[in-house]
Amino acid sequence: MERLDTVAIVGVGLIGGSIGLSLRNRALASEVVGVGRDPTALESAIHLGAIDRGTTDLSAAVANAEVVVVCTPVNRIADDVRRAAESAPSGALLTDAGSSKRQIVLAVERHPRSAAVFVGAHPLAGSERRGVDHARADLFDGRVCVLTPTSRTNRERVCRARAFWTALGCRLIEMSPAEHDEIVAYTSHLPHALAAALAAIVPCEWLSLAAGAYRDGTRVAAADAALWTAIFRENRGPLLKALGTLRDRLDVFKYALMTDDEVAIRRWWDQAKERRERFDRELDTPESTDGPLPRST
Amino acid sequence: MERLDTVAIVGVGLIGGSIGLSLRNRALASEVVGVGRDPTALESAIHLGAIDRGTTDLSAAVANAEVVVVCTPVNRIADDVRRAAESAPSGALLTDAGSSKRQIVLAVERHPRSAAVFVGAHPLAGSERRGVDHARADLFDGRVCVLTPTSRTNRERVCRARAFWTALGCRLIEMSPAEHDEIVAYTSHLPHALAAALAAIVPCEWLSLAAGAYRDGTRVAAADAALWTAIFRENRGPLLKALGTLRDRLDVFKYALMTDDEVAIRRWWDQAKERRERFDRELDTPESTDGPLPRST
Repeated sequence: MERLDTVAIVGVGLIGGSIGLSLRNRALASEVVGVGRDPTALESAIHLGAIDRGTTDLSAAVANAEVVVVCTPVNRIADDVRRAAESAPSGALLTDAGSSKRQIVLAVERHPRSAAVFVGAHPLAGSERRGVDHARADLFDGRVCVLTPTSRTNRERVCRARAFWTALGCRLIEMSPAEHDEIVAYTSHLPHALAAALAAIVPCEWLSLAAGAYRDGTRVAAADAALWTAIFRENRGPLLKALGTLRDRLDVFKYALMTDDEVAIRRWWDQAKERRERFDRELDTPESTDGPLPRST
Repeated sequence: MERLDTVAIVGVGLIGGSIGLSLRNRALASEVVGVGRDPTALESAIHLGAIDRGTTDLSAAVANAEVVVVCTPVNRIADDVRRAAESAPSGALLTDAGSSKRQIVLAVERHPRSAAVFVGAHPLAGSERRGVDHARADLFDGRVCVLTPTSRTNRERVCRARAFWTALGCRLIEMSPAEHDEIVAYTSHLPHALAAALAAIVPCEWLSLAAGAYRDGTRVAAADAALWTAIFRENRGPLLKALGTLRDRLDVFKYALMTDDEVAIRRWWDQAKERRERFDRELDTPESTDGPLPRST
């Protein structure tokens, strides 16, 4: 990718801040402008080296931008993309970092001006922590980023979005917004919901008998409530389907337990162990405790 | 605790091996004898410094033991305790490291000779890995160990069991076998079952979109199938109850999703987040990825 001119990052939290750090550390852009609602957070982002300058004025920030990356919570992304599209140069690329895609892309495509410049993206990186203080220049190194172009997406913009996310260190996958949402309902949103269910049902006075399985199984339940409420709402159809699949799977186990069927219990566990080992083998996931899923700020 | 004479460890895997390493590194016993069915594994244990000598002959190994620790799988513990009690000196202390307690204690107490010397124990330390190769001298440092004496348990043995597990680094808690099993059904066995359910329902071709939430949420599903089949079977009553509680909790979430009730979804998440944060605050759990639950070999 040739060095970009101005890149505007809308929402400078963990994800937006990490994009800024990565762009600046690699000298991928001549200027990185941060857009946010909280001037103090923008000051922090400048201090941490995530952006060159910050502003609360979205229109002004994107006026000269070659690329605009929207990293706000999923329920605000479509609006922010549309507003940015109104003020950005007609040649700009707009992309986002939202954890759900179907509703965002639908909303963006209702407006020809934003539809013409937007390529939906979801970098699978993040943390249960939030805020620019936890941003890292290497957050995207080796992580998958899903692009979700549709038949209405400008192909030249897809190429540029590919180059942009690749320059940040991502491995790219492309699929439709609906397919993306169906898959992440299983691979990310359901794991978050399960972590929260497990966390809540253990009474406080029993926590001293909780060890590594509870700790790891509930880690992502420490993530931000507002962000996850928005993600669950955006993707509630596919998530309800995933919850149904989980119930069926647990019912197989329950029946095996009720009938004390050693062979069935063991087979049930073996299938899980095999899948989990395949995940470890194939994916060589980063060893840090980061990266449950991207979330924006 | 005064230095012990001979300690026999029945089952020299991850847990038994770690007990041996800890005893020998701290010079807590004049001799550590390992009992196992696989001579090669016993050779490994000697080589790794976990035991002084090994044998496949349980009776001979315990004949002069001051303490016998049974670290075999939960479905073998009661038998091994009874066999050890027949050959051990009448003054010996017998204890175990099983992840379930009610059925083991019931079976042990059916025999006066084993009932007189046994104190059930469950050190909450372990790993999804198995075998003496993964044993660590510090596995028990700061970890909770639950003792489950009953009205039939010899009080002098309880004092000695307390001293023994404390010397290995454990923090001790005492409760009844039934209470132990009810609690660990929620804090450990359910988290293992959930990890396995989650691992299995994500199709292989979707694993490239699984990141940290799936990785952490399924980690313990890599644990040994035979060991966990035995644990689930031993504790299936309380585990079925815990699965019912989980279903109720997920139903609250499902209903909130179906009605797109933002306040309810957020409240549901907040309750989980608060519990999880309390766990982090109160427990200062070791940061290693070890420690889902003890398992014996």
